[in-house]
Amino acid sequence: MNGTMKGLVKETPEAGAAVRYDLEIPRVKDDEVLVKVRYAAICGTDQHIYDWTPWAQERLHLPMVFGHEFSGDIVEVGSAVRRFSIGDRVAGETHIPCNSCAECLTGNAHNCEKMKIIGVHVPGAFCDYISVPQDCVWKLEGNMDYKTGALLEPMGVAVHGVFSGEISRRNVAILGCGPIGLMAVAAAAAGGAAKVMAADIFPAKLALAAEMGAARTVHTREEDLVQAILQETGGRGADVIIDYTGNARLISSAFAALKKGGRFTLVGLPNEKLTLDATNAIIYKEAVVNGVTGRRMYATWMQCSELLTSGAVCLDKLMGGEYALEDFAAAFAALKDGAPGKMLFRL
Amino acid sequence: MNGTMKGLVKETPEAGAAVRYDLEIPRVKDDEVLVKVRYAAICGTDQHIYDWTPWAQERLHLPMVFGHEFSGDIVEVGSAVRRFSIGDRVAGETHIPCNSCAECLTGNAHNCEKMKIIGVHVPGAFCDYISVPQDCVWKLEGNMDYKTGALLEPMGVAVHGVFSGEISRRNVAILGCGPIGLMAVAAAAAGGAAKVMAADIFPAKLALAAEMGAARTVHTREEDLVQAILQETGGRGADVIIDYTGNARLISSAFAALKKGGRFTLVGLPNEKLTLDATNAIIYKEAVVNGVTGRRMYATWMQCSELLTSGAVCLDKLMGGEYALEDFAAAFAALKDGAPGKMLFRL
Amino acid sequence: MNGTMKGLVKETPEAGAAVRYDLEIPRVKDDEVLVKVRYAAICGTDQHIYDWTPWAQERLHLPMVFGHEFSGDIVEVGSAVRRFSIGDRVAGETHIPCNSCAECLTGNAHNCEKMKIIGVHVPGAFCDYISVPQDCVWKLEGNMDYKTGALLEPMGVAVHGVFSGEISRRNVAILGCGPIGLMAVAAAAAGGAAKVMAADIFPAKLALAAEMGAARTVHTREEDLVQAILQETGGRGADVIIDYTGNARLISSAFAALKKGGRFTLVGLPNEKLTLDATNAIIYKEAVVNGVTGRRMYATWMQCSELLTSGAVCLDKLMGGEYALEDFAAAFAALKDGAPGKMLFRL
Amino acid sequence: MNGTMKGLVKETPEAGAAVRYDLEIPRVKDDEVLVKVRYAAICGTDQHIYDWTPWAQERLHLPMVFGHEFSGDIVEVGSAVRRFSIGDRVAGETHIPCNSCAECLTGNAHNCEKMKIIGVHVPGAFCDYISVPQDCVWKLEGNMDYKTGALLEPMGVAVHGVFSGEISRRNVAILGCGPIGLMAVAAAAAGGAAKVMAADIFPAKLALAAEMGAARTVHTREEDLVQAILQETGGRGADVIIDYTGNARLISSAFAALKKGGRFTLVGLPNEKLTLDATNAIIYKEAVVNGVTGRRMYATWMQCSELLTSGAVCLDKLMGGEYALEDFAAAFAALKDGAPGKMLFRL
Repeated sequence: MNGTMKGLVKETPEAGAAVRYDLEIPRVKDDEVLVKVRYAAICGTDQHIYDWTPWAQERLHLPMVFGHEFSGDIVEVGSAVRRFSIGDRVAGETHIPCNSCAECLTGNAHNCEKMKIIGVHVPGAFCDYISVPQDCVWKLEGNMDYKTGALLEPMGVAVHGVFSGEISRRNVAILGCGPIGLMAVAAAAAGGAAKVMAADIFPAKLALAAEMGAARTVHTREEDLVQAILQETGGRGADVIIDYTGNARLISSAFAALKKGGRFTLVGLPNEKLTLDATNAIIYKEAVVNGVTGRRMYATWMQCSELLTSGAVCLDKLMGGEYALEDFAAAFAALKDGAPGKMLFRL
Repeated sequence: MNGTMKGLVKETPEAGAAVRYDLEIPRVKDDEVLVKVRYAAICGTDQHIYDWTPWAQERLHLPMVFGHEFSGDIVEVGSAVRRFSIGDRVAGETHIPCNSCAECLTGNAHNCEKMKIIGVHVPGAFCDYISVPQDCVWKLEGNMDYKTGALLEPMGVAVHGVFSGEISRRNVAILGCGPIGLMAVAAAAAGGAAKVMAADIFPAKLALAAEMGAARTVHTREEDLVQAILQETGGRGADVIIDYTGNARLISSAFAALKKGGRFTLVGLPNEKLTLDATNAIIYKEAVVNGVTGRRMYATWMQCSELLTSGAVCLDKLMGGEYALEDFAAAFAALKDGAPGKMLFRL
Repeated sequence: MNGTMKGLVKETPEAGAAVRYDLEIPRVKDDEVLVKVRYAAICGTDQHIYDWTPWAQERLHLPMVFGHEFSGDIVEVGSAVRRFSIGDRVAGETHIPCNSCAECLTGNAHNCEKMKIIGVHVPGAFCDYISVPQDCVWKLEGNMDYKTGALLEPMGVAVHGVFSGEISRRNVAILGCGPIGLMAVAAAAAGGAAKVMAADIFPAKLALAAEMGAARTVHTREEDLVQAILQETGGRGADVIIDYTGNARLISSAFAALKKGGRFTLVGLPNEKLTLDATNAIIYKEAVVNGVTGRRMYATWMQCSELLTSGAVCLDKLMGGEYALEDFAAAFAALKDGAPGKMLFRL
Repeated sequence: MNGTMKGLVKETPEAGAAVRYDLEIPRVKDDEVLVKVRYAAICGTDQHIYDWTPWAQERLHLPMVFGHEFSGDIVEVGSAVRRFSIGDRVAGETHIPCNSCAECLTGNAHNCEKMKIIGVHVPGAFCDYISVPQDCVWKLEGNMDYKTGALLEPMGVAVHGVFSGEISRRNVAILGCGPIGLMAVAAAAAGGAAKVMAADIFPAKLALAAEMGAARTVHTREEDLVQAILQETGGRGADVIIDYTGNARLISSAFAALKKGGRFTLVGLPNEKLTLDATNAIIYKEAVVNGVTGRRMYATWMQCSELLTSGAVCLDKLMGGEYALEDFAAAFAALKDGAPGKMLFRL
């Protein structure tokens, strides 16, 4: 497909972005599909790019369209593409695996040694058309709508954390009620957790957590997280704690609320180094701490599809706001102000 | 049995200890066995007690016989004892579980919520006779000698760490070549590790590590541990790292030598808080960090018995010195000076 | 406690039983508790005893009170009993482990090498008072009623099967809707199964299965079980199949409805030898078949307590009939006639 | 590459085969590599094809070159091939996965729902040149010789079975000492098995088993297998039994030699239906039975490479005979006569 398109571009090494209308529609390579984007959601990573933080400065080459959570329709396929056809409704997978390293060759493509990320290392999805390897799209099952489809990518991160150990009839504490944490609340509840507890500092997010399945919410600035969890678990502590905040102090302190033999899963990237009393936090408890990054290709996609098509999880309440691309400033401002749910661009 | 006996007593709240000859032989309770001690080994815990460190000050009630790694013969059994008879040759298990808490009731007695420790909370084994619950002895299989028997308790800690995850054909790094670390080296090698690497700061201990099965030893003050491990593993890192040092800085830095998806097991109690770059150490690697305390009752005893009676592991080279109880000062001095292997009292 | 009591006795080697009123109240041994039975439920094993089948003939020494699923109050405790007091409301655990064999010493007491069974090898619970080792009672949590308490023992068998592998978001087929199968349906649903399918030949039992959480019921004489499961799972088969029927032909045929990599758990004792096309049933599928017997001591008791006290599972609908001991003939007849739910004696 | 080549062809639907010299050298597709075959080994499957058994009749379309265990040099690569270059020394992977089904997308490509097999569904390796998808070759590490390379494919089957559960310090019985069974003996020993026992009916194969690491060999026609295993394990039974015979009667009877909680892995395809007393074989033992097919792509390739390059396993003694393609009749006859080790064609 030839022609030009609209896109949100990070042009200069400073805060902000700009909508451009004369971008070239990308050409598909042999193993790629061209997707007409319908919805694209804003991730915390996009906020880093928008704000041009050191994290972004180290990674991006400007100018570049960014954004990586999207859904849309396949409008063109490369010659070597076998799994998809024109007209397929799809969601985007951000990881571009090399398919050659030891991780890729043993079922861990999501942790590829030479990983590239859409919207960070290569052009992103805040635009009309994106061309990606067929590895990076997933068919929307049944009549799943495009807005839900645009949220499958972060939902994969949520379920990857939740199901990285057993969850059935466990008492589970989810730290952080951003969109991923909220999806984790819902996934844990649907996965048979005995009791889901959710923590955050925004009342509106905690209210959403309760709607998504949390039996107990904890405002961590108003009450003591550890005491709250111990109280909810008969003094024994949570079987599973999963962090989606990346708040190093919160993580370190939360170990006191973990049961003997419990699991502490780290998903959020800590904002500073963890300082841990490992003797009491891990050793005497025989705790297991595991890290989780991205989402398994493609087990988590299947898990998300099952959760959504069965009705066990519904993301409607997570739709935080729908914006035209031109209203990007308002969308990023809402995110920064702690508005609950996901901000989406309609394309 | 009535009468008096000899024992090494911690009498006053200061460094040191004293041999007493007029101690009363303990009376067995219904569920206890009286053991004539043959050999008792000195543990790092005993060093704490001897030196009267804060750790000891918080826990002991003086005066008290200490010591908890021992072997001997059963000379009397309580009325409710069923698993043992007079004449049984046994080794001592330090944990006294409550048998009532949730951990005890689900196969985790070694992590009892109300655990008492022999030689810390109740009288110890540096004496002629000790009376302990039948839960706290284990029959010496075959013709296992008493000196080896006295080392089964710390060996249980070693194998608990090694076999807390899969070890077959893994590249394994053991940090710390004290007696427990050395037994871990041997257990990992016997357990089918692809390559065992061992680290310490004493050349004599590293030499022993090589004899116990380490294919590569690393003097951590003379060469870079991370580089050494990466070099030995084709740049990919160790599949498994097990720490028996409790050296917080070494632990934190060693994560850089862990493979993606690898296991880092903590056994040694860190001397200070761990400061961890969790993003790179754990999350991006999808690493698993697990804590291990004591030894499983009684799975690790069975594992140790199998390793020793099959000849897969032999502890002879770990016998660091044999002392009369009266020579305790020399024994503790040897331990402090970094003499390799275990110091034993012959009783 | 002295005196006489009432009990249902298997007296002679033929079908039937008799109520006696002059039985001696048992004396508690040191490690035993005396329980005033409140409710006792009838198990399939009791039917074997009542009917005097070869299974019963090989095991029982007559005359003997039988019955082993019970609840009641502790009215006396032996001198060595520490976990219980007079007045405790308890349910009975049927397994009497030796506490000395390799299985008992490694957390598998429920599979003791020298297991004795209450009501089979030693006197049972169809009577006013039963004296059992403290290992064989479990406190009723909260305000759990005695009727539910009497069903905890079979419920332990149900959850042992269900949770012998992962259940979260799996498609699960439960074969057999007797009381244990029905409790398994409820446990699987509460454990986060994606979809629970239940199979039986009695419509009334299938109706109960639907009430307990089965999304799909299959009358195996009226429709093809394999086709039904395949249809419900998009042609891929069930992730987990758990058999509580012991029907060898049904088991063998059901493997065709198991997904690649699926789990097939056997709980019911097959009535004849299994004849299996292992190539297609197990090998080409890389299936896992695991056997489960009894219930884990005491992990399954904790699981049952949690499921019931949280309200995730409720057994009220499983109460099939309440009888005076004297009406035993009617109770056994109801069981034989396929009446759904559990028959209970009120004592 | 153009031209003709030599190959062993199954031409007509009857026993036998024929060497042809005018076969066309295959053309590489985009994702294929052309391999100049150096060595090709004869598998049991090839014997089926040679003998034209019903198994072969159902699967092959004649005429066709057969054979699927091979090594050689890449002499040409398709335009989409990225992982390999001309000159690479490689071994062949028999599975051709579809890369699109649910199994392929979740790390189980070796159990693809639409699997094709080299030498069965598509032309094989008993010839000068074979063109295969890049998924179907694996680089020979270091200076591994071509003969060993030709045995990597069956060795993958061996290690897949051995490492489908824990093996460290387990007592392991390997049933069947054909080449795969012998490689399993070696892998289990290298994997840290406590004791490897091996069973067969050919003394020469049992002698090889002892050389490969079996501590005990059992001639199953001269002594009772179950008794032998029980005797070697102190009456408790083997922790792990792995069958490579496919002898249904042997498999069924061997369960009596499995320990409580043990693992029974099925690799060999049973020659008839299994008849199992599941109550005693599986349920009362809480045994786990798992099926294993083919070899994991590419975890088992990495495991084989590590075992061989480290020197932990050496296949030299398994080279049973080296033949020119023209001597195929002698090679197949040797296999049929029970000659130990692998028969190889030198090309």
